[in-house]
Amino acid sequence: MRARTLITILLALAMASCGKHEPKAKYVFYFIGDGMGVSHVTLAKLYADSVLHDSTAMSFTRFPVASLSTTYAHNRYVTCSAAAGTALSTGTKTSINTIGLTYDRTDTLYSIAKKFKEAGKKVAILTSVSIDHATPAAFYAHVGSRSSYYDIAKQLLKSNYDFFASGGFLEPYGSKTDSNAVSVYELGKVRGYQFTSSLTEVDSLVAVGAKSIVYSAPNPAPSNTLQYEIDRSESDISLADITRKAIEVVDNPNGFFIMVEGGKIDWAAHDNDAATVIHEVLAFARAIDVALEFYRKHPHETLIVVTADHETGGLSIGNRENKYDFHVKLLHYQTASEERLHKLIAEYKEQNPKAKFDDLLKFLSDKTGLSKDIELNENDIKMLNDAYNVAFKGLKSNEKTTYSETDPISKVSIQILNSKAAVGWTSGSHTGQPVPVFAIGSGQQLFVPLLDNTDIPKNIVRAAGI
Amino acid sequence: MRARTLITILLALAMASCGKHEPKAKYVFYFIGDGMGVSHVTLAKLYADSVLHDSTAMSFTRFPVASLSTTYAHNRYVTCSAAAGTALSTGTKTSINTIGLTYDRTDTLYSIAKKFKEAGKKVAILTSVSIDHATPAAFYAHVGSRSSYYDIAKQLLKSNYDFFASGGFLEPYGSKTDSNAVSVYELGKVRGYQFTSSLTEVDSLVAVGAKSIVYSAPNPAPSNTLQYEIDRSESDISLADITRKAIEVVDNPNGFFIMVEGGKIDWAAHDNDAATVIHEVLAFARAIDVALEFYRKHPHETLIVVTADHETGGLSIGNRENKYDFHVKLLHYQTASEERLHKLIAEYKEQNPKAKFDDLLKFLSDKTGLSKDIELNENDIKMLNDAYNVAFKGLKSNEKTTYSETDPISKVSIQILNSKAAVGWTSGSHTGQPVPVFAIGSGQQLFVPLLDNTDIPKNIVRAAGI
Repeated sequence: MRARTLITILLALAMASCGKHEPKAKYVFYFIGDGMGVSHVTLAKLYADSVLHDSTAMSFTRFPVASLSTTYAHNRYVTCSAAAGTALSTGTKTSINTIGLTYDRTDTLYSIAKKFKEAGKKVAILTSVSIDHATPAAFYAHVGSRSSYYDIAKQLLKSNYDFFASGGFLEPYGSKTDSNAVSVYELGKVRGYQFTSSLTEVDSLVAVGAKSIVYSAPNPAPSNTLQYEIDRSESDISLADITRKAIEVVDNPNGFFIMVEGGKIDWAAHDNDAATVIHEVLAFARAIDVALEFYRKHPHETLIVVTADHETGGLSIGNRENKYDFHVKLLHYQTASEERLHKLIAEYKEQNPKAKFDDLLKFLSDKTGLSKDIELNENDIKMLNDAYNVAFKGLKSNEKTTYSETDPISKVSIQILNSKAAVGWTSGSHTGQPVPVFAIGSGQQLFVPLLDNTDIPKNIVRAAGI
Repeated sequence: MRARTLITILLALAMASCGKHEPKAKYVFYFIGDGMGVSHVTLAKLYADSVLHDSTAMSFTRFPVASLSTTYAHNRYVTCSAAAGTALSTGTKTSINTIGLTYDRTDTLYSIAKKFKEAGKKVAILTSVSIDHATPAAFYAHVGSRSSYYDIAKQLLKSNYDFFASGGFLEPYGSKTDSNAVSVYELGKVRGYQFTSSLTEVDSLVAVGAKSIVYSAPNPAPSNTLQYEIDRSESDISLADITRKAIEVVDNPNGFFIMVEGGKIDWAAHDNDAATVIHEVLAFARAIDVALEFYRKHPHETLIVVTADHETGGLSIGNRENKYDFHVKLLHYQTASEERLHKLIAEYKEQNPKAKFDDLLKFLSDKTGLSKDIELNENDIKMLNDAYNVAFKGLKSNEKTTYSETDPISKVSIQILNSKAAVGWTSGSHTGQPVPVFAIGSGQQLFVPLLDNTDIPKNIVRAAGI
């Protein structure tokens, strides 16, 4: 071998070993935890460590890169999932409620999912909420209003992406005001889309060469979402299940792009329901573990990026009442989401219309630990008694939060439990805190400094070399 | 040149260019923002951008590495400055209130400052609070109780470090219970320490070869601290001033280690006083800019690490009342810290004992914008009127927060202003959120993943190669 050749090889090896010419990210996973701030991640990790004693959980927090990203929208510092989703999917800021269009809604913005598809890769879009919701929609739709669910669904059918999985559609038969609309299912068939709510059927559709599959979970929760992890029974589909299935469907030698949204972290945070947030983040983390299994087989050609669209709730580990103490363990007494608790209380009331306050307390203690494992003070009792009077004696009607119907009893119960655990919340809405960014794999070094949400898709495309 | 020699040189060049054999960090700056969470940094940056229109401020947020660190103590998830300071200075977790000792207080833990000193480098310890406070003390003292200020000060005199600068000492003449104590100043002279409260005198002491200098700011604020930045007059010393002086004192060919604490970010956050927090973070950022000037002269041999010991206040950008709106601009109406406002109100009361509520409102509007630039609603007026009745009609005595004396009027005014601005707080204490980590310079890549506070000093020592 001549010296020059040897030098060239050695230099290439040296450069490669320090990452200057590393292989491109052929397989890309983009995980978006809706509403998942730094505190949501920290709280779930603390719960996994000190309550579940599961040190293998939340593996994404051990990724070699951990950073932060700002989230503000074009016209508001505290963003929404539409504007943030568009920033994360296209690399351009837009205005509140806008999806895939410029801030003034005059120009179209294209998502990196489309870029991957045009580069000959397969694309899957997955979420635990409905597939027409803001975050998944930002990867294929262009609408001036995030609530144009039927329009969004119709645009999904034009995307030509390979696999969609979610809890379902919100308006598959058209918006309520349009009775002549042709259903998404009818329109989809014309465009070669196959619809199913069976994972086994996904396999048989793949076997016969179906090009595009839309999977909707059977037994969806309200608003056509996957069941909250805290409420999920064994027969219900998890985010990890659909992530595994997506990999099976889109894995091919040209590579793929898979976006996975943990959509209900945000919903539980809107309800200021910490236990439900924790279980949602843990479910999201298990979906990331599925990607990590794939990464381990293809470490030099895979990139996994985990981030969020915004923080929800102003969550903190500590509150005024408990000062320096934090009682994360109390949260394990909660066995149902606030949303489910509301439903259970309604059923209980129907079966026991004349239940006394003490009967109700006994019922609640099973679901939340309150009054049995967790001592109530005079003020707690008063709050619960007031809520009982409203719900059982008809003093005033139910309240409604952003995403879930609630009743005063479930609301007050979860509020008391969160307060006792020392979980602090400043808001029932989103906040302007930066969100965490975690990365592993080819191109991970692009995510090291403080980023803006518009940097993230640009860096993903750079890492993939498309 | 023989091929083998050429290959060796080329390989070394290639490796060097990718940072595998980069020069050691001869000059180390360790910036600790006490209580400075991710939100505190974000809020200050937002204020600099959108109120001050100063895009050069907060340069540390643009460092090439931004990451996060967990902060928990050995025996409590929500830490204190003593345990966190010890973790950040020694790399070992300890128990609450303990400084420089193991969690059971049976063994001594040594700080990296001592390691740097033993490696022949010069050491400076700087803070905006008193030099015997928990964070600076963790770099030289070993005590079972952080409030043993006199003991801590005596241990400072044994450190042999080169330069200390702060607001002063808390108990230089011994604790109140020990009237026979020899003053720190007397003891210091025996050990060759020079004390001064003049920056010019620092220069002359250096000129005559003084080995160890303890600088205390003239005109200190309560608790012997530097004035809050929001209250600081031009003649008052800033954290940037003492950082610049420290570099002049310790710069030498063997290198140095400078720890700079922004100590009063925490104090303002305990008071839930957002405007004062913002100005403290901006002052801290200007001290970092001084280090950055030095870095630019020695980019290959300097490391700057910026982090915090814990989050204080559960601060968030958004609150329940304002939902998705954030009104950062309202905070610029505040022209005094809550602490200073308390003092001003006391003076006003002394001069105007019979002031009517409307007179007080006029007085407050100058300091906070309330009732003039910021409209008050019925409930705000009621809260302020109640506070007026307490303070001027003697209905009950003043309250006291962790660090600063306050009165109901200043407390309620700042609370209303924060609420209008949509700044959320969940606590008057510390919280368990991870804190930000920013790094630039030699060894910066060691700070890329999610860290624990005990990793940070270990990484600094690794970067310095000592």
